[in-house]
Amino acid sequence: MAESWVNSAQRIGVDLHLELSGAGSRRAVLGRALRDAVRDGRLAPGTRLPAYRSLAADLGLARNTVAEAYAELVAEGWLTARQGSGTRVAQRAEPVVRGREPRPGLRQTSTRPTSDAAPRHDPRHDLRQGRPDAASFPRAAWLSAARRALNAAPHEAFGPGDPQGRIELRRALADYLARARGVRTTPERIVVCSGVAHALRLLFAGGVLRGPLAVEAYGLPFHRSILAAAAIRTVPLEVDDHGARVPEAASVRNVLLTPAHQFPTGAALHPERRAAVVDRARARDGLVVEDDYDGDFRYDREPVGALQGLDPERVVQLGSVSKSLTPALRLGWMVLPEHLVDVVLAAKGEREAWASALDQLTLADFIDSGHYDRHVRRMRQHYRGRRDRLVAALAAHVPHVVPTGIAAGLHAVLRLPPGSERRTLEAAARQGLALDGLAAFRHPDAAPTAADGLVVGYAAAPDHAYGAALEALCRALPPG
Amino acid sequence: MAESWVNSAQRIGVDLHLELSGAGSRRAVLGRALRDAVRDGRLAPGTRLPAYRSLAADLGLARNTVAEAYAELVAEGWLTARQGSGTRVAQRAEPVVRGREPRPGLRQTSTRPTSDAAPRHDPRHDLRQGRPDAASFPRAAWLSAARRALNAAPHEAFGPGDPQGRIELRRALADYLARARGVRTTPERIVVCSGVAHALRLLFAGGVLRGPLAVEAYGLPFHRSILAAAAIRTVPLEVDDHGARVPEAASVRNVLLTPAHQFPTGAALHPERRAAVVDRARARDGLVVEDDYDGDFRYDREPVGALQGLDPERVVQLGSVSKSLTPALRLGWMVLPEHLVDVVLAAKGEREAWASALDQLTLADFIDSGHYDRHVRRMRQHYRGRRDRLVAALAAHVPHVVPTGIAAGLHAVLRLPPGSERRTLEAAARQGLALDGLAAFRHPDAAPTAADGLVVGYAAAPDHAYGAALEALCRALPPG
Repeated sequence: MAESWVNSAQRIGVDLHLELSGAGSRRAVLGRALRDAVRDGRLAPGTRLPAYRSLAADLGLARNTVAEAYAELVAEGWLTARQGSGTRVAQRAEPVVRGREPRPGLRQTSTRPTSDAAPRHDPRHDLRQGRPDAASFPRAAWLSAARRALNAAPHEAFGPGDPQGRIELRRALADYLARARGVRTTPERIVVCSGVAHALRLLFAGGVLRGPLAVEAYGLPFHRSILAAAAIRTVPLEVDDHGARVPEAASVRNVLLTPAHQFPTGAALHPERRAAVVDRARARDGLVVEDDYDGDFRYDREPVGALQGLDPERVVQLGSVSKSLTPALRLGWMVLPEHLVDVVLAAKGEREAWASALDQLTLADFIDSGHYDRHVRRMRQHYRGRRDRLVAALAAHVPHVVPTGIAAGLHAVLRLPPGSERRTLEAAARQGLALDGLAAFRHPDAAPTAADGLVVGYAAAPDHAYGAALEALCRALPPG
Repeated sequence: MAESWVNSAQRIGVDLHLELSGAGSRRAVLGRALRDAVRDGRLAPGTRLPAYRSLAADLGLARNTVAEAYAELVAEGWLTARQGSGTRVAQRAEPVVRGREPRPGLRQTSTRPTSDAAPRHDPRHDLRQGRPDAASFPRAAWLSAARRALNAAPHEAFGPGDPQGRIELRRALADYLARARGVRTTPERIVVCSGVAHALRLLFAGGVLRGPLAVEAYGLPFHRSILAAAAIRTVPLEVDDHGARVPEAASVRNVLLTPAHQFPTGAALHPERRAAVVDRARARDGLVVEDDYDGDFRYDREPVGALQGLDPERVVQLGSVSKSLTPALRLGWMVLPEHLVDVVLAAKGEREAWASALDQLTLADFIDSGHYDRHVRRMRQHYRGRRDRLVAALAAHVPHVVPTGIAAGLHAVLRLPPGSERRTLEAAARQGLALDGLAAFRHPDAAPTAADGLVVGYAAAPDHAYGAALEALCRALPPG
């Protein structure tokens, strides 16, 4: 080759120095340069290569030449090309430092529900609770919101942030929560955080609230482990069809509840109990911490408003977009009584990991532009359909198993004959079906009850796999 | 480089085969080849290298190029140069991976400079350190990366995340850090976090490392307050023009350093000290925690590689995009010795606030597509210009005040006559100028020294306001 670009060195998009020299066609020279770069590790496994168009422009080549060189290297196994993820350097053994094996399931412990952790080995059938349908994330709408938000953001948005959270997001949340959840607040009383776990850490490990704390006898294990790590003693409250029973006489001042949709039993806290729990907090100078974890999803009844609306000075409302939108954003909030705002901010500290300001601005736009409401409505329809299919499958195949707690949320509870929970979970595991039993959520100090049951999350399975998951569930359930 | 010697293999005097290829200047290529040869044992400890003159002749390079490459490797601790005995490969023991014994920690301290906090009331003139130029965030490039990343992401990216961080980002970081900072790692040894503060919390409050801990006598107050909150006793190390002095005899096993650019004095840790601190960690079964807080910004000299490259099993490298891109993303990383990965992940927990997966995917694309390199190069030019204006303003108006620590980073230190620091800060405040004195960074147990000075951050002020800020600074400085 005698062309002028030969023997020139080019920096391609990934900041790689390509030596374009030697004999052969342009395609051959480019192919050789890329092969060398992969071989000696300058292009690491998994590295995404520039699009044909941009590499062609950088090197002054025809787009086809680049496409052909890529195709040749894909055919030779140096590169991989996958729809949607572009052309990447193939995964091979690491050339330099020997890596670690992928970690074995750290999370596989007996006291922990399978669904409380990130999935490392995807089960064949997934009916774990606590996760939304990942395939439904509104990518295009989110990207438009990100574009509007980033273009509109003042320069200071890219400087050190306010640990309380962006004012744009706190305004949008104050408005949305008032409208959708009956929360009474101002933006000044909202603190943005990474989610409910982060909020609990700030409140308890941060020393804002001190123990002991009354909690529901069945509840989210991550609540309990955060409280245990903060050395907060917890006292279990009995849970029935009207939610948690908070005895008037109990000595404990502060209480943590899931009033709108008790987790996992699915009950809404009875109106009389709602009033009583707030009165009790006033009488004892205590606080109610309300985990409003799936308040957006109601099907057969009007939404139950947040307890916080009864007394904003006695109730801390915690929420996040983890169920309504995605847990991948790590965005949540605390709505605080006025006297706690500065205390929580002091616990958070100037350098506490707060949520990405860029995502905060995007979420603010997403809410303000109506996309959040639209998404929630769409998902409500979607999850209602999922729930109806669960109910219908049970009625058709195992009519003796009656689902409960199905008026709201992303999961149902199937009651089982006493003593059959473990056996049923084993049968489910043999079907390759991941889900949890009620026992995984029971407080260790709770009175032993005969409550056996399965907690069935109907949101997480992909659409195409949901039918098969339901069939596996019906096969695993004990015969009537 | 396009010259013909690139990609040629050369046999140097000690009968070593050097592979001279890849990106960068001649000096960089030679440096890399020598580093590789030491690392993989082709150049044994103690081996004497050829004189500059003879290696330059062998390779067809300028003598200065060889001298500079040697100096760089000496600075990084790969080589030693001693009067009369020439340049030799440094003596270091082979790395050994061993478990460590925890030790009890004790008490606490804290101080806080003005610039460690988010600005609630903007000062008239801003020369605070620790923050990049917010106006330079590359909005359009970031949005394109976000679009590509979100469109290419698999559905599972919107489900519960891996607390270790997205593999796409860990791959991109492993590649970038190897290339730009000489870090030796695999993606499996990286844990994504929200920044250096989060990393320190995981290591110390999370119980991964126990005190006491040797720290630089001048350092970042947020380091100290996190350590204090974790009840880690800290022992100050004297800091001089060659960085921190780590006495051989000191009993403390673990040490926290800013080796590439001591904060705030600006010294690079002396090559002998670099080697010694790693040797010391090996001998005592200790660890070095390296805060590589502004490693990307060097002006008048070649970058000093990360200390981690000397021994990946003895050094934890911490970094973030807070200086290089923006603190608004809350994205950082820890490069860990293999035996600490699972320990750190256990401390992090499945529900620990991890960084937004969407931002992680976007940053991975931003790095892989070359935008990160381009941005860093652009900002290096920009900050160098800022620094030069500071130096020029001082020379013109207060020539008796000499800036130090200016070869790198986003700040300089102006030494003041003993006893004049507080007065000068008061004069600055009267000008509406926000900046810090050296005292704000001194460890409370450090020996009282006569080191008075100002820490001048030259990155944060907006372009249009920088000139006025410099004028205010010159007016505030004591007359000669």
